[in-house]
Amino acid sequence: METNNYLQILRDVKDVAFATVDANGMPHVRIIDIMIVENEKIYFCTSRGKDFHQQLLHNNHVAITGMNKNYQMVRVSGQAQRLENNAYWIDRIFEENSSMNDVYPGKSRYILDAFVIEEGEGEFFDLSVSPINRYSFSLNKKPITLKGFVISDACIGCGKCMRNCPQQCIVEGKPYEIIQEHCLHCGLCYENCPVKAIQRRKTI
Amino acid sequence: METNNYLQILRDVKDVAFATVDANGMPHVRIIDIMIVENEKIYFCTSRGKDFHQQLLHNNHVAITGMNKNYQMVRVSGQAQRLENNAYWIDRIFEENSSMNDVYPGKSRYILDAFVIEEGEGEFFDLSVSPINRYSFSLNKKPITLKGFVISDACIGCGKCMRNCPQQCIVEGKPYEIIQEHCLHCGLCYENCPVKAIQRRKTI
Repeated sequence: METNNYLQILRDVKDVAFATVDANGMPHVRIIDIMIVENEKIYFCTSRGKDFHQQLLHNNHVAITGMNKNYQMVRVSGQAQRLENNAYWIDRIFEENSSMNDVYPGKSRYILDAFVIEEGEGEFFDLSVSPINRYSFSLNKKPITLKGFVISDACIGCGKCMRNCPQQCIVEGKPYEIIQEHCLHCGLCYENCPVKAIQRRKTI
Repeated sequence: METNNYLQILRDVKDVAFATVDANGMPHVRIIDIMIVENEKIYFCTSRGKDFHQQLLHNNHVAITGMNKNYQMVRVSGQAQRLENNAYWIDRIFEENSSMNDVYPGKSRYILDAFVIEEGEGEFFDLSVSPINRYSFSLNKKPITLKGFVISDACIGCGKCMRNCPQQCIVEGKPYEIIQEHCLHCGLCYENCPVKAIQRRKTI
């Protein structure tokens, strides 16, 4: 699948979680509608009175996640930019999401500011299949951060990792190899390798 | 409703969003199961290999949100503590959530660590009614942070705020008053009061 397909899952879920960090470094999260998805961009809005709006102006890094009824999850992280030409975007958002009129009737809609996430990275995680499936993707070519674990050449081929893996996603070889798209990142192989041949990819 | 009723909504949704802040101050969010709710406490687990686990050990402040099919949302923020007697809690979690065995069969379950949120504060938000309803609540008596706006004695009674309010949640009086449980926190009254009589409650 391509990036727009993953973002379309978020648009179909529509009510997804948006996480921010406030001025004191504390996490916050709330349900926000994905209003428009196009050209690998995500559009949303919030009113200027909300803490969410204050947090976005102070620190525009956001992390998003939603899950559909088929236990498919999409995560995106990126930076949210306030859009120029706000009235145009709010009108378009209301046109494509008419239930917004129930909450913000008439001209009260213009208390909302429209934002876009243009660049970011994301992950698709499908818990409905066995083994699980996961893929990373990029919004507008932002480099992808690789996560999880890899088996180095220090592997002695004892097979302990393969036997322990809850998803059976490690295959024999020199070295043994983790099939990354099926890996939970649980760390069971990493904790139990007798020669510490398994490395955690540094992400934070 | 009482705190346990609000937490039960999260338990019923089950797959909710957990936000954390990483060592670089960046927000992260992912779908995590609410495994047990009792005595105003929330129990969950994650495996030791995941970034989520690393983030919790570095900074245990979490923010949670979930929404049910009736457009009722619950948010909770608090600190997550790793539980002593991990095997007991993981066994109990698997007993009450048997589908966990599909993902972590056999003894692989013990790569998971159990956590609890004992103290925190939360908010219930019901978008299915008009006007909307919102209530704050506390987990184990943590003080509640008041949000939103209040009208001060500087109010001249012109009624502009009442006419503009998208939820019709401002009533006449000296001063006029915002019915807090119906307020969106949109800020339209605050932006348009001709005498700046409306104050934002400082939360961040």
